[in-house]
Amino acid sequence: MPKIAMLSTGEEVLYGDIVDTNAAWLSRVFYEHGFSMSKRSTVGDQRTALLQEMVMLSLNLDVVIVNGGLGPTSDDLTAEVAAEAADLPLVLNQAWLQTLETFYAQRGKPMPDSNIKQAMLPEGATVVDNPIGTACGFKMMINDCLFYFTPGVPSEFKKMTLEQILPDLRHEYPNQQGRVCRRLYTFGLSESGIADTLSSINLPPEYELGYRSYLPFIEVKLFGPSDDLELGSRVLAMVEKLLHTNVVSVDQPMLDRIGHLVETHQPTISISEHATKGYLASWLQDNEQIEPYCGATWVLGYKTASPLDRNSERLGATLALAGATKSNCSSDIALSTGKLEDGEFSVALSTPKGEWGQTLKLQRSYNAQSIKTVISTVAGDMLRRYLDNKPMFPDYGFLTRTNEIFVPTDQLT
Amino acid sequence: MPKIAMLSTGEEVLYGDIVDTNAAWLSRVFYEHGFSMSKRSTVGDQRTALLQEMVMLSLNLDVVIVNGGLGPTSDDLTAEVAAEAADLPLVLNQAWLQTLETFYAQRGKPMPDSNIKQAMLPEGATVVDNPIGTACGFKMMINDCLFYFTPGVPSEFKKMTLEQILPDLRHEYPNQQGRVCRRLYTFGLSESGIADTLSSINLPPEYELGYRSYLPFIEVKLFGPSDDLELGSRVLAMVEKLLHTNVVSVDQPMLDRIGHLVETHQPTISISEHATKGYLASWLQDNEQIEPYCGATWVLGYKTASPLDRNSERLGATLALAGATKSNCSSDIALSTGKLEDGEFSVALSTPKGEWGQTLKLQRSYNAQSIKTVISTVAGDMLRRYLDNKPMFPDYGFLTRTNEIFVPTDQLT
Repeated sequence: MPKIAMLSTGEEVLYGDIVDTNAAWLSRVFYEHGFSMSKRSTVGDQRTALLQEMVMLSLNLDVVIVNGGLGPTSDDLTAEVAAEAADLPLVLNQAWLQTLETFYAQRGKPMPDSNIKQAMLPEGATVVDNPIGTACGFKMMINDCLFYFTPGVPSEFKKMTLEQILPDLRHEYPNQQGRVCRRLYTFGLSESGIADTLSSINLPPEYELGYRSYLPFIEVKLFGPSDDLELGSRVLAMVEKLLHTNVVSVDQPMLDRIGHLVETHQPTISISEHATKGYLASWLQDNEQIEPYCGATWVLGYKTASPLDRNSERLGATLALAGATKSNCSSDIALSTGKLEDGEFSVALSTPKGEWGQTLKLQRSYNAQSIKTVISTVAGDMLRRYLDNKPMFPDYGFLTRTNEIFVPTDQLT
Repeated sequence: MPKIAMLSTGEEVLYGDIVDTNAAWLSRVFYEHGFSMSKRSTVGDQRTALLQEMVMLSLNLDVVIVNGGLGPTSDDLTAEVAAEAADLPLVLNQAWLQTLETFYAQRGKPMPDSNIKQAMLPEGATVVDNPIGTACGFKMMINDCLFYFTPGVPSEFKKMTLEQILPDLRHEYPNQQGRVCRRLYTFGLSESGIADTLSSINLPPEYELGYRSYLPFIEVKLFGPSDDLELGSRVLAMVEKLLHTNVVSVDQPMLDRIGHLVETHQPTISISEHATKGYLASWLQDNEQIEPYCGATWVLGYKTASPLDRNSERLGATLALAGATKSNCSSDIALSTGKLEDGEFSVALSTPKGEWGQTLKLQRSYNAQSIKTVISTVAGDMLRRYLDNKPMFPDYGFLTRTNEIFVPTDQLT
């Protein structure tokens, strides 16, 4: 089992201006491929700190993934310091210089001189191609330790890791037992609540559960050997059974699940938003299967009291809004979110079968974005449940339902 | 200047299941007090990895802040490993045992035996008091390096850092100079472009520039001593002058700047969105000063060809949309985003002075969210420039302007 470390560079990571999402992602992906990380370190852009860390790592580990510091600016020192650590000169990589010139030529621009720096690599280093950016990745040995150098831009870093570094490592270390991670997305439960519920399960050897919590979802991860997927599926089914009503999707985010259902049933959808301020339409449309029908989604303002706003009965207002939107747009389905008042909001769904509406209360305060996310998720979940013939009003642990209503079509006035 | 590192412990940090907010916080606070962090490392709960890291740090740094692993459970190894690293026995600290017993007595509970472990400290270590928790902080020398051991619970960690560790360090290193960071937000420039432009500046000693790039902005950071803010402002003004048309705000994000301008001029605003799908309204409203007027923002769908969509002239269509939205809503200002086709989009602003519209082309492909972010930022920037009396059509480096138009009110038909 190789000892692997990640070295993240850059003031902005060291000083926490940006969260090192690359590091979290890398640990996860490596783990799934049977490579576990034994340490991670972060240094800023000071030459000596960087040099010292590279040397220390090279003496104590087998593989090091260095991330960041390959940019054109003078504070990006990684390649230079790598050369110093290996006691090699920097040499101009003609092939990569060519790539850079093409990159800029295609955009009809002269290449800034500062970019030439990005083609200077330690002598003998092997290029790790970056198909989407100007930073050139490379690999080289430093004191018998295999170093991979990667750019900080997440999209570039991830693509290079998956397409080049991982295959390379699997070739170097062919006997690593692969692990797979199955994911189950829940909405409305607390992590400790889930843990208690699942504590009753006797996991087979080599299987373990993990949790990843990010508003508004908690992801339940089942890790297991990659050579018995069938057993893994059985365990996952058991987990799903125990969490049933709060499971929104399996092995795919909820939005992908909704997109799949929309693709299958092809409903036309219209949307009216108060509390979500346009975020609901924006979020749903991140899945290309979903888009508002009939030319318009309404994002209702707050200042002006439309007749609906004046309606004292919040749930009724939101239900009426969904109905009005559906008929104005003559769409199959309409979603609406009502105003948020004292942490309480209503969400409604109007369909050919009838209209569902519910009022929920947040149990704690959230920032503006989180509120839009939570409310949009409830609306999305109603759409998902309707298309999937699931019960419409599950118990959302962290939301208190204060009101709910269903009006079948034949009772709609 | 002491060489300072932070060592974070715990699987959940190493694997990125939780974000190490303590590390980000510590780096910032230390920096402001003139102590800058030279590295940070993270290891899991394996004894050997932890021991090796402590020893390596002790040999290469002056001060190390260790965070986490002081809990009562068996996987919390920090104190034990610290003793091993210094080759000292663990001894029971009577004073802290007393503190623990009082802690539980006050809560009318017996102290679980497992907590006794929390009063076992390396021989000769000095207690760093934890006024709010059961984990005992302590400091000790390992190989001439000063180690502070702190609990992972953020509230406890922060209180101990501010009230005990920082004063202690200021006493050890009385001559540290505090630093401040000024920020300048740019839109449309590349990091290398900015670096080239600013390379002409001769920074005063002790001043340095840093960059933080996150779509769609690039933040230029000016670090300098905290005792000469006036000089800092002069340098910042120089930087702003050089980047002029692309600077969207200083020491505050662009959205805050727009919010400030809206608060000052109190315009009523309405919005119609194609390409931004509701994100523009949603994003602008993250600033509470801004909300769409007249009860509605329209998010136009794609499937249905409204008369406007059929208009072959994309810029004209978007301009007309802004005008129509403004008059329908009888608002002072209307913003509109047109369809995105082949990476090309139009954005328009209708105002009492007239209507501005521009068509821009993305120079590379972005994911769905990034596209909405970029287009919304252009729209927001038009609003900002209008309210701020700035030129409306700056050169956005990473966007190619293919068309632009201004129609003064008296020429509007």
